[in-house]
Amino acid sequence: MAGSPSLLRYAILGTGALGGYYGISLAAAGCDVQFVVRSDFDYVRQHGLKLDTIGKSIHLSPVKVVSKTSQLAPFDVLIIATKTTSNHHLVEQIEACPGSPTLVVLQNGIGIEQELESLFGLGKVLGGCCFLCSNKVGPGHIQHLDKGHITLGWPSDQAAAAAADRDLPSRIAADFGIAGIKVQVIPDLLLARWQKLMWNIPYNGLSVILNASTAELMNDDNSVRLVREVMQDVRMGAEACGKVIPASFADALMEQTRNMVPYDSSMRLDFRAGRSLEIDAIYGRPLRAAASAGYRMKLVETLHEQLSYLQNKYCK
Amino acid sequence: MAGSPSLLRYAILGTGALGGYYGISLAAAGCDVQFVVRSDFDYVRQHGLKLDTIGKSIHLSPVKVVSKTSQLAPFDVLIIATKTTSNHHLVEQIEACPGSPTLVVLQNGIGIEQELESLFGLGKVLGGCCFLCSNKVGPGHIQHLDKGHITLGWPSDQAAAAAADRDLPSRIAADFGIAGIKVQVIPDLLLARWQKLMWNIPYNGLSVILNASTAELMNDDNSVRLVREVMQDVRMGAEACGKVIPASFADALMEQTRNMVPYDSSMRLDFRAGRSLEIDAIYGRPLRAAASAGYRMKLVETLHEQLSYLQNKYCK
Repeated sequence: MAGSPSLLRYAILGTGALGGYYGISLAAAGCDVQFVVRSDFDYVRQHGLKLDTIGKSIHLSPVKVVSKTSQLAPFDVLIIATKTTSNHHLVEQIEACPGSPTLVVLQNGIGIEQELESLFGLGKVLGGCCFLCSNKVGPGHIQHLDKGHITLGWPSDQAAAAAADRDLPSRIAADFGIAGIKVQVIPDLLLARWQKLMWNIPYNGLSVILNASTAELMNDDNSVRLVREVMQDVRMGAEACGKVIPASFADALMEQTRNMVPYDSSMRLDFRAGRSLEIDAIYGRPLRAAASAGYRMKLVETLHEQLSYLQNKYCK
Repeated sequence: MAGSPSLLRYAILGTGALGGYYGISLAAAGCDVQFVVRSDFDYVRQHGLKLDTIGKSIHLSPVKVVSKTSQLAPFDVLIIATKTTSNHHLVEQIEACPGSPTLVVLQNGIGIEQELESLFGLGKVLGGCCFLCSNKVGPGHIQHLDKGHITLGWPSDQAAAAAADRDLPSRIAADFGIAGIKVQVIPDLLLARWQKLMWNIPYNGLSVILNASTAELMNDDNSVRLVREVMQDVRMGAEACGKVIPASFADALMEQTRNMVPYDSSMRLDFRAGRSLEIDAIYGRPLRAAASAGYRMKLVETLHEQLSYLQNKYCK
């Protein structure tokens, strides 16, 4: 049933823990999905892609795989699932795509949609926040541990109004729904991004700085107190930017994390592997946004400086 | 010339990097010095004490060594050079001393003199801040790397007024002077303590959290920025407590540290050895003092929580 006419055609840029999970799930559900794969290209062409998810395993072979976006066949939606640490290549990768796909930014941090809109046009960029615990455990091999839902929306009302199809988020949500993945279409992407940062900023950073899993962080009074304080700092930053998040949201996030499977944040995995950390997306961009709006997130700044030091010392 | 009548008689409680350095230096200069030695008692009784200092080595043998303060012969001044992490034993150790010596607290943190005054009397307690880079490198073996001067004073004008000899700090300074150690008598001990905290709080904490020597911390823009921010936070805390420290003091401290030999802070050495960290003295007490005076040192709090987490995880 691949290529069913009612479904959108997707290309996945970045077939890692995140892009791999969503792309394989969509393809298994019958969507036309092309994968852009860099380092594992030969392996994936020969062996396909594998997803171990809760209670089942999906082996996708053959897969539509290319090593460059210029080799893609025409499609509708580009899922941008690369790390922000390689965003210096992103614009040329998008420019090389056939046609004029709508871009769906599933990256961390804030402000990336706006930068892409300025280049590719208002109404051509969607953004999504992913709540996903998954890891890439080998070439073309993704292990899904927990969660997976996405909140998806236009970056602004102007963007929605300018879009050729302002209901595109709902169509994407329908496709993901067939794949068993819940996509919630939201009216305020920036609010969702700040809400996501309330998790990412404390847990990603502290998991690296304190060499701890989420479970360990939730199992010590000191780190719990610190997580709460950092969340509060992010909340004040969001509020300065006009995005009001109630204090109870922090409690709910912490409660969810307590009940989550013990998880190594993506930043901790990157750190352990000696890879670049997503410091600018998760810390630098929000810090600059809040500072521009008149609030200095001092605890976030502290984590930013600690992480930058550790990256300089231990990562390439 | 041991026991020369013009000199004070000393007992050193805690013959480690700090007490060992000062005690051996005083004894070598001719002062009557008794050492209270716990874990290395047998070794020190047999082999004496050794101090490697810049350009020379001192071997003190035999030494006046006891394992308990109750075994001390009469003396004038008790130098308290133990870690604050064993302060739950301190009062009984002092009570077991013969006579009624004056106490000189050479420990980190604030408020300890006041607690001892409340038990042993106003005018019976002096406090000093040590600026010393030294390590204990083996049983009874101290290695002195850099610096060594002390600022010494009464905790308050009331204490000086109540003292049997209000010039005792000058007499102690004279004895240390013979040993080649500069002791500066200061009118405001609490100010000196806050000034010392401006070094201890950033460098001790960050050296543990970021696994870094002082040289490494001063060699990365991110950690330099963070050190400066933490110093600023401490400065605000001190100011709330009525101790005004100019901003230029932070620059001077950082410049001194940049020019210091690469040094593992005492907290980092403790952490590496899996020993308890002086978190309450260096972080907890100042945090409570500043909070009582109406200022919350949020960056200090962050380091406090990170260190407490790490201690729970890695130290006994």
